Amino acid sequence: MFVLGIDPGLSRCGYGVVESTGKNLRAVAAGVIRTPPEMDLALRLAELQKEIHALIADYQPEEVAVERVLFQVNVSSAMATGQAAGVTMAAAASTGLPVALYSPNEVKLAVAGWGGADKQQMERMVQSQLAITKPLRPVDAADAIAVAICHLAMRPSAALAAAKKQ
Amino acid sequence: MFVLGIDPGLSRCGYGVVESTGKNLRAVAAGVIRTPPEMDLALRLAELQKEIHALIADYQPEEVAVERVLFQVNVSSAMATGQAAGVTMAAAASTGLPVALYSPNEVKLAVAGWGGADKQQMERMVQSQLAITKPLRPVDAADAIAVAICHLAMRPSAALAAAKKQ
Repeated sequence: MFVLGIDPGLSRCGYGVVESTGKNLRAVAAGVIRTPPEMDLALRLAELQKEIHALIADYQPEEVAVERVLFQVNVSSAMATGQAAGVTMAAAASTGLPVALYSPNEVKLAVAGWGGADKQQMERMVQSQLAITKPLRPVDAADAIAVAICHLAMRPSAALAAAKKQ
Repeated sequence: MFVLGIDPGLSRCGYGVVESTGKNLRAVAAGVIRTPPEMDLALRLAELQKEIHALIADYQPEEVAVERVLFQVNVSSAMATGQAAGVTMAAAASTGLPVALYSPNEVKLAVAGWGGADKQQMERMVQSQLAITKPLRPVDAADAIAVAICHLAMRPSAALAAAKKQ
């Protein structure tokens, strides 16, 4: 099972593909899509849309997980991040893939065991779960990998909850 | 010259196509794209993206004008509107069309002559410029038509400013 995790952003959009084979997790790809700030906003969003489609074509994930954008202190950057998240969700859903959203706290809870985990704790837990010796870089790519891990952790319980309802 | 104006929104996204032939303006199409609130967010955004592509294919506008999303009192609806605006801009720009953004005040200034114009003044000015006897409905469609008229009003001065720079 391949999951594409996205940490949305307009200037820097983190992505990470995680493969789950039973209990093992493997980071298949991780990186950052950048769009130049001097470029026209609509063209930046179109560029981001193209890159998301290219990632889906290249890695053929079965599901997509996107970090939910919350309001930050800087409202103008929150709006740009929201626009980027919107484009990401539409691009993924238009290819027919299921798209799940997770708040930053949900990602921390699923990956590190509690919603108040700091960056270093998250890094160590991601390293441990992927069985890698160095922290993932750049940071946006590591965040996207954490979103994908969160989705893989939440999926079985979601399936279980659905099964219990039946 | 055909311009597609968009008043972005997730539940209701207004659109209007205005044709300019010299000094005359004509509303070619006006309506609202709706996505159901009970539907998954990513699917709603994908649906909006599909509808924007369909409008561009149907009416073959040469340029697209989108109303800029500002922060409102309700931050959660502002975020949804921002996501819808992002999807709209990316959809239009990915087809190669130029996309221009205008703030609500810029639209009022261009259409009614001043940035503080109220809804009734805007309605009357749009009616007058399109030479129609009844106000356009629904309201979101009328707002989108105003964005397209704003773009047509701003274009020549933009071209003039560019020419003066040379």
